[in-house]
Amino acid sequence: MAIVREKIVLFGDSITQQSFQEGGWGASISNAYCRKVDVLLRGYGGYNTRWALFLLHHLFPLDSTKQPLATTIFFGANDAALSGRSSERQHVPVEEYKENLKKFVLHLQKCSPTMRIVLITPPPVSEEGRLAYAISQYGEKAVKVPERTNEVTGQYANACVEIAKEMGVYHINLWSKLQETDGWQKKFLCDGLHLTPEGNAVVYEEVIKVFNEAGLSSDEMPLDFPHHSKIDYKNPARAFQQNVCAAPL
Amino acid sequence: MAIVREKIVLFGDSITQQSFQEGGWGASISNAYCRKVDVLLRGYGGYNTRWALFLLHHLFPLDSTKQPLATTIFFGANDAALSGRSSERQHVPVEEYKENLKKFVLHLQKCSPTMRIVLITPPPVSEEGRLAYAISQYGEKAVKVPERTNEVTGQYANACVEIAKEMGVYHINLWSKLQETDGWQKKFLCDGLHLTPEGNAVVYEEVIKVFNEAGLSSDEMPLDFPHHSKIDYKNPARAFQQNVCAAPL
Repeated sequence: MAIVREKIVLFGDSITQQSFQEGGWGASISNAYCRKVDVLLRGYGGYNTRWALFLLHHLFPLDSTKQPLATTIFFGANDAALSGRSSERQHVPVEEYKENLKKFVLHLQKCSPTMRIVLITPPPVSEEGRLAYAISQYGEKAVKVPERTNEVTGQYANACVEIAKEMGVYHINLWSKLQETDGWQKKFLCDGLHLTPEGNAVVYEEVIKVFNEAGLSSDEMPLDFPHHSKIDYKNPARAFQQNVCAAPL
Repeated sequence: MAIVREKIVLFGDSITQQSFQEGGWGASISNAYCRKVDVLLRGYGGYNTRWALFLLHHLFPLDSTKQPLATTIFFGANDAALSGRSSERQHVPVEEYKENLKKFVLHLQKCSPTMRIVLITPPPVSEEGRLAYAISQYGEKAVKVPERTNEVTGQYANACVEIAKEMGVYHINLWSKLQETDGWQKKFLCDGLHLTPEGNAVVYEEVIKVFNEAGLSSDEMPLDFPHHSKIDYKNPARAFQQNVCAAPL
C-alpha cells in the first residue's frame, strides 16, 4: 500500500521560478528534504499578486486529499514596479498587494489549518544594477530611470511583514536581511533584482531556519526507507518488514 | 477544478539521491520542466537493485491514479562493488542485476504502458580516485585495493544496455559516454565514483536528449498558465478564462 508523500510548495514569481537553476534555493530545499518530503515548484515569472490570485484555486484546491505541509509565498518584486515607468503593467498598489497576500493566506488556512505558511518579502532593489541591466539588454535605447526603487520595494516588504504578523503566519524579511551585508547590491543580486548563488544561499538558510522553528526540521524526520547501512545484507527483507512506512511515501 | 500535474520520477542510488545538490542533474531537469511537469526525487544512497526491489511497489503503486510520464532507473554502481572487497555487502552478481532491472521495467510497464522508461548505466569508476578517496577518509587505515573496478562496472553497464534493448526501453550508456572525454577520471568524478558538476551536466544533457527523442521535449509542452507577457493588464481575467488547463496542473 502506498501512502502519499508529504509536500512543500514554493509559490511565487520569477525568484521562485528560477530557484532550481544552479545554486538555486528551491533545489537546495529539495535536497535537504530528500527521502522525506517532495518540494514542488510553483513559480510564475513576471506575475504580481493580482495575477497570481487567478492561480490560487487551481494550485491549491480546497478538496485536495493531501494538502501541503508548508507553502512559501514569495511575491512583491513585481507588484512594486513603479506606476508611470517601464514596468507599469506589473504594478499593484501596496494596499491591494496586502489584500491579495491576505487572500492567499486565508485560502491556504482554509485548505489546511496545520499548513505552515511562510510569507517572504521581495528582496531589495539595486537601482544602479537595474539600469546597468537595462543597458546590457537595450543599449542606447535603455530607460534612464529604473522601473523599481529600493525605497518603494521596502514599503511592500513592510506590508508583507505586517500581514504575516496580523495573520499569525511565518515571515522572512528578505529586504532587510540582504541589506545587512555590505555590497549586497552585487553580492546578492545579479541584475539588481534577481538572486546570485550567494543570494540564493541566504534565502535557503532563512527558509530552513523558519521550517526548523515551525517543527519541520528535516533532521528530525525519519527517512522513507532504511538507510543502506541498516540493511542486513544476509537478510535484507527484515529491514523492509519493520516500519517501512514510518514516513509517508 | 484541479487536474493533477504530470510527473517524472528519478529512481536510483546515491547518484540520483545527490542530484539536487549544487549543479545536480536532477535539479536541472526540474528547472527544464518548470511550470510543466513535476520532477520527483527517489534516490537511495548505497542501494543496489536487490534492495531497491523492496521499494518498487511502494514507490510505483499499480493502482496509482496518475502514473509518471517518465522514470529514469539509475542503478548498478553498488551492484558492481566487488565480492571479497570492502563493499562486498552491496555486491549483486551481474546476472541478478539484469533480472532485477527486468523486474523494474516490467513493473513500470504494468503501471503504465505509455510511461517512458530510461535505463542509465553506472558511470565509469576511477580506481585511483577511489583509493585517494579512501585515504582522505581513513588515512593509513585505508584499503589498498579499490572496492570497485572500472572493468567490472563496465560489465554491469553492458548488462544494463542489453536489458534496455531486450525490453524495448530507452537507455543511456553513461559508462561509455563519460570515457569519451580525456581526463574523465577527475573531470567527471569527484571521488572516483560520484559526479562532479561537469559530470552532472553530461547526465542532464543525455537525459534531456532521450526525453526529447521520446516526445517529451519541454519546449513543445505548453506552460501551465499564461506567460506574464500574454496577460492584458487592463483585463487580466481574460488570459485565465481561455484554456487555463491546457497543461495539467
